[in-house]
Amino acid sequence: MPETTQEPIKVYEGLAGVVFTESELTFIDGEKGILTHLGIPIQDWAEKSTFEELSYALLHAKLPSSAELAAFDAALKANRGVPPALLEQIKNYPKTANPMQMLRTAVSYLGLLDPNSEDTGAENKYATAIRMIAQFSTVIAAICATVEGRDAVAPRADLTHAGNFLYMLSGTEPTLEQARLFDIALVLHADHGMNASTFTALATASTLSDLYSAVTSAIGALKGPLHGGANEAVMDMLDEIGTSDRAVAFVTDMMDRKEKIMGVGHRVYKFFDPRSRVLRDYAALVAGKQGKSHYYQILEQVEETVVARLSGKGIYPNVDFYSGVVYSDLGIKKEFFTPIFALARISGWTASVLEYTKANKLLRPLALYTGQSDQPLTPIAER
Amino acid sequence: MPETTQEPIKVYEGLAGVVFTESELTFIDGEKGILTHLGIPIQDWAEKSTFEELSYALLHAKLPSSAELAAFDAALKANRGVPPALLEQIKNYPKTANPMQMLRTAVSYLGLLDPNSEDTGAENKYATAIRMIAQFSTVIAAICATVEGRDAVAPRADLTHAGNFLYMLSGTEPTLEQARLFDIALVLHADHGMNASTFTALATASTLSDLYSAVTSAIGALKGPLHGGANEAVMDMLDEIGTSDRAVAFVTDMMDRKEKIMGVGHRVYKFFDPRSRVLRDYAALVAGKQGKSHYYQILEQVEETVVARLSGKGIYPNVDFYSGVVYSDLGIKKEFFTPIFALARISGWTASVLEYTKANKLLRPLALYTGQSDQPLTPIAER
Repeated sequence: MPETTQEPIKVYEGLAGVVFTESELTFIDGEKGILTHLGIPIQDWAEKSTFEELSYALLHAKLPSSAELAAFDAALKANRGVPPALLEQIKNYPKTANPMQMLRTAVSYLGLLDPNSEDTGAENKYATAIRMIAQFSTVIAAICATVEGRDAVAPRADLTHAGNFLYMLSGTEPTLEQARLFDIALVLHADHGMNASTFTALATASTLSDLYSAVTSAIGALKGPLHGGANEAVMDMLDEIGTSDRAVAFVTDMMDRKEKIMGVGHRVYKFFDPRSRVLRDYAALVAGKQGKSHYYQILEQVEETVVARLSGKGIYPNVDFYSGVVYSDLGIKKEFFTPIFALARISGWTASVLEYTKANKLLRPLALYTGQSDQPLTPIAER
Repeated sequence: MPETTQEPIKVYEGLAGVVFTESELTFIDGEKGILTHLGIPIQDWAEKSTFEELSYALLHAKLPSSAELAAFDAALKANRGVPPALLEQIKNYPKTANPMQMLRTAVSYLGLLDPNSEDTGAENKYATAIRMIAQFSTVIAAICATVEGRDAVAPRADLTHAGNFLYMLSGTEPTLEQARLFDIALVLHADHGMNASTFTALATASTLSDLYSAVTSAIGALKGPLHGGANEAVMDMLDEIGTSDRAVAFVTDMMDRKEKIMGVGHRVYKFFDPRSRVLRDYAALVAGKQGKSHYYQILEQVEETVVARLSGKGIYPNVDFYSGVVYSDLGIKKEFFTPIFALARISGWTASVLEYTKANKLLRPLALYTGQSDQPLTPIAER
């Protein structure tokens, strides 16, 4: 910054409202509760598509033909394996470490092992993106195995991306319904415009660093409780509530004390988060068929109480409010929720890096200096 | 973004000129060639201080008393050791991998091994910062050993931060003059305001993620050729020139063809980068005492030719122009230059994260959606 200025300098705290690039991937209208990828509403993606198809669409900024999708799917399946040296590492991670620390380290190591990692040309970056999307599944399942103190399950090439992940997680092939429900959850989380982790990936990639560096940065950002981790916090709250009959009093009390209720409200959405509607409907569908799970019963009460009191203020349950219960009903432990967020968002991260670096611009904003000037370095004996 | 707007939306490409936070650490006036930390000119820091003292000053935003500096220095010395599991890992990294991929992975693993990594309170973050500054030296020296195919040298607690690093790098205790010259180089690179890697560290930290995640992100960003790596590129150019008698013709030819000369010009500085002046003077001092090295002789010719022709346009040799030759004269190979940049900048990264997260604000700018709207998800058979 120049030393003197006539105008007061505007500080855009958190860069809120600052537009820094163009993108043709994802559109969000928080006021109206709209989320689209390539102009197609998220509800359609969830109901009629798959994680594989959406990943293709994000990476290419276009819908695939059936031949293109088949080739993409085959490439994903062919790339599920990871280097044995990495699996050996993951096996030896201290099992009490944070799974996101494990994921960040494992992906960074994957880059170290990739002899082509320094080729940051568009073609290699695209090939690397496909490999990373496929390998994330195997790496995350191996991390879950380490945390649970069991051997990692090798991937199967005859299952869908979602189905294979659930299989690796439990060692048992999921039902088609379970695989589909998890697929929908992956679709809903695959991309969300300029969220904090995607932005961090771009900040790293903007120095023309490699894709592993960008994704490692994104994992580190997603790890933070202000970004990933909200659905885990919702489950913590449900655990604290304990039983459904205590739910109304519990959250009423929280609202009276003006405490933040986890999974409720969103920086962008001032209306019902369209992703949460989809997940809520599917959770209800599962509950209708299989009976309401313990967590579902509590969640239902919390939702009703919260919506009745806060929706008038534009505060609604968000996607994290429902995803935890859906994952939990699929047998997934809450400490794995944030890695599973990464399992989905890797498509958005890589697609956004590919898009941004096509006409790359180094990201380098300014800080306003508010410290002292003209200071001497006084000799230390005189201080 | 809302769907419709009356006003044209301004896109701040690269976030250039956008102020997003306040800082009392570093002031830069690129027009006048001024760089200060805590209001003290960089020249004073280089001539009268040490990397240890500047690191303290950045982390605390104040100068230390002699007792405070002694305690800080003792803490750095006490923390030079790293977990044996990490050293074992580094030893087994494929020696042909990029050293920055190694550093990113090693620091991520260091976080995984730290049982307190999830404590993101200010006190633990400060303790972690000191440990990281100290451990970076040992980790980077171990990485250099792996690349060179030799055993890592254990740190010594009786040497300065700079002297100990040079000792670990060669296995031989450096002269006081060598240690001091390297210390000056570390001082000059310790912080530089809101550069791309520091900004990336803040983006990650702004989700309230841990310090290892922030630093891992910063390493990934520094790795990019638009940020770190410029001094390595200068050495590549000097190698290509080959001998000093070819230098004038070589760079004249480059300038005629309007090619970018590595290490010349800077996004911020439109005047002589104050850091480059200090390094140039010290490089000249060493050359005066020990005779001009091979690289110094070429550099001298390049500098003269470039300054004569470009300085009128506000384009000057920057710090990277000189640092490569200084490092090379200290016996450091050019593939280690970027890790050594990290060795210095870890102080700026950690200090900036500590400062920013005191009044944290999630970093989340916007992208302008330029894609299609109201698209149907056509059945794949119809595409």
